[in-house]
Amino acid sequence: MKYSDLAMGLKASEIRELLKLTTMPEVISFAGGLPAPELFPLEEMKQVDVAILDKEGQQAVQYGTTDGYIPLREKIAARMKQAFQVDCKPEEIVITSGSQQGLSLLAQIFLNKDDIILVESPTYLGALNAFKLCDPRFVDVPTDEQGIIPEELEKILEEHGDHVRLMYVIPEFQNPTGITWPLERRKAFMDIVNKYDFPIIEDDPYGELRYDGDIVPSLKSMDTKGNIIFLGSFSKILMPGLRVAWMVADPEVIDKIVKLKQAVDLQSSSFAQRQCSYFIDMFDLDAHVAKIKALYGKRRTLMYESMQKYFPEGVTFTYPEGGLFTWVTLPEYMDAKAIMPKVLAKNVAYVPGEPFYANGGHANHFRLNYSNMPEERIVEGIKRLGDVLKEEIAK
Amino acid sequence: MKYSDLAMGLKASEIRELLKLTTMPEVISFAGGLPAPELFPLEEMKQVDVAILDKEGQQAVQYGTTDGYIPLREKIAARMKQAFQVDCKPEEIVITSGSQQGLSLLAQIFLNKDDIILVESPTYLGALNAFKLCDPRFVDVPTDEQGIIPEELEKILEEHGDHVRLMYVIPEFQNPTGITWPLERRKAFMDIVNKYDFPIIEDDPYGELRYDGDIVPSLKSMDTKGNIIFLGSFSKILMPGLRVAWMVADPEVIDKIVKLKQAVDLQSSSFAQRQCSYFIDMFDLDAHVAKIKALYGKRRTLMYESMQKYFPEGVTFTYPEGGLFTWVTLPEYMDAKAIMPKVLAKNVAYVPGEPFYANGGHANHFRLNYSNMPEERIVEGIKRLGDVLKEEIAK
Repeated sequence: MKYSDLAMGLKASEIRELLKLTTMPEVISFAGGLPAPELFPLEEMKQVDVAILDKEGQQAVQYGTTDGYIPLREKIAARMKQAFQVDCKPEEIVITSGSQQGLSLLAQIFLNKDDIILVESPTYLGALNAFKLCDPRFVDVPTDEQGIIPEELEKILEEHGDHVRLMYVIPEFQNPTGITWPLERRKAFMDIVNKYDFPIIEDDPYGELRYDGDIVPSLKSMDTKGNIIFLGSFSKILMPGLRVAWMVADPEVIDKIVKLKQAVDLQSSSFAQRQCSYFIDMFDLDAHVAKIKALYGKRRTLMYESMQKYFPEGVTFTYPEGGLFTWVTLPEYMDAKAIMPKVLAKNVAYVPGEPFYANGGHANHFRLNYSNMPEERIVEGIKRLGDVLKEEIAK
Repeated sequence: MKYSDLAMGLKASEIRELLKLTTMPEVISFAGGLPAPELFPLEEMKQVDVAILDKEGQQAVQYGTTDGYIPLREKIAARMKQAFQVDCKPEEIVITSGSQQGLSLLAQIFLNKDDIILVESPTYLGALNAFKLCDPRFVDVPTDEQGIIPEELEKILEEHGDHVRLMYVIPEFQNPTGITWPLERRKAFMDIVNKYDFPIIEDDPYGELRYDGDIVPSLKSMDTKGNIIFLGSFSKILMPGLRVAWMVADPEVIDKIVKLKQAVDLQSSSFAQRQCSYFIDMFDLDAHVAKIKALYGKRRTLMYESMQKYFPEGVTFTYPEGGLFTWVTLPEYMDAKAIMPKVLAKNVAYVPGEPFYANGGHANHFRLNYSNMPEERIVEGIKRLGDVLKEEIAK
């Protein structure tokens, strides 16, 4: 058998492979981006499932339209206004099977081989894997502790300007760094990109999970040209296993996405879309999000304080105001992947930083997740990790 | 904004567009491939959903592995043996979001632009849409009332031989024709393709829905080289809205598919996979399939007899031994798409035949579905359709 060029270039996601290693119950895993399972509203879901079958029955398990269940899209439109300050109509929303599918579909409609895509450096490695299927040229945009650096973006656009076909950003509680762009940065960003006409994906799966500080308007809410494509998801505010997410975009983009989705999987699950929609009708999603925020905020603080206590001098880390991740920077001579076996030997796991850089390098970082492990394991895991780091730094 | 070459070539599936038109309750639609909703086991699903949440709770709605829920893959392996005479292990199975996703993933791992793919003439238009995303060259293999004609296939392979990268067939109750390949044809087919080394997709969503005649072994059960890739689905034997299907293939193929699926949607719904798995545990899927067969068999016969009664001379149609479709052939000078407005004016719908041909032409056919409409509407719809055909033929 002969495979396509795409198939020959396929590599397994390092995160997914790591997740396999870290499912043993004895491992304190800070590796995945898993929500806290103890907060999943299981009793509510029983009522939701019965209500769906009672009220809609056959339609709920029959084929549906590719763009998605209309009552859910209406509720998402309302939520976009409430949580993300975005005015949009249900026709500007398409339901996807997780935001991962949104990324993959967008890459396919915008990127030919060797086209330029701008990404934050570092950025979400799952997005890089989706984009790589189109074999584009990645141009890294440097970031600091406030996100993308406007001057650097300007320089890059002066050089590559009209050849940029797509940009991907996570302005809110970024994966992997946990960094949020302040309002001034967002305004400067919009001023710069508005001089051009390429689409920009604003990926915002954690936007509602803010533990400190003030809400900052989404890029989409500032969009005057229709170039921002917003991705939202139920994975982190409800349950990831349903695989229900959404995209908000200009109707022309939505039209192309729907046609492409027809060919790639016809539609997302009729039943799962109703599970999200009925949950919103029958229960209080805001109250549920408040519960998540309370728990994750506590864990965030606990991890931060544990790192302050147990990590050696020379190791720095971010203070995320929300989301699921913090980003650790080791002295430049160190390699987080090389240390990994020693960390795993102590039954602790993280994700090494290099795969988050489109063009590699930067081996002296790793990502930690604080949403999934209970409090006592966070402290214990950071302590063990601190022990390894102290040994390695002392060498 | 500039779109990719792929995006510029996107067209909406004619079937999906037609489905939109035919959702008005007054339309007697023979257009879609929708199962009979009255057979969906809704009361059973209530028990299934509660059992999932009681027994597995958090895991059932958390992220899972890309290849799929292992207990479901174990049950599918058993079913592959029982219903399709195929010995396979759970590791040779990957869960997909409908067989449509299986087709799309397979196209991507095997086809570069301009590569040759062999397809039956006619074949399933949804598959053509999935393949078209890779922009291959379609070579039609002629068929007769017993499926692919071995001599024609031999000729094509003599010409294109080593340049064929993929082949797609539906040997059982084909979509759109309803035709089944007899055993001798299957043996002849395997003898021919075994001289080459390209992968062959055996798409079999209806294989368990046989109303007459003897079971014929699947191609996969005759496969000695590991080149047959089998696609099965819960859409027609349980419920399509869950979007749970499976692929059985050589481990090397499975490995590539899993890596690609990681990048395109991470995984299929954790909950929906358990809905299928628990249904098999808690209820009798064979008994449920028997109910479906009894109803669809009755409808198949009723549609066939109604066509004999109401269609004018010069119009021929297939007698499907199973599945969901029959295929109507008009005199060559007629165009099924051109007649469509007159048919729709009588609130009846079918799918015109041309989109089922990879390279177009053959406008004098249309596809009828008999699984979705209740008996009295089948008779009434065929009667109305017969009236239009009589008028058109008389012209």
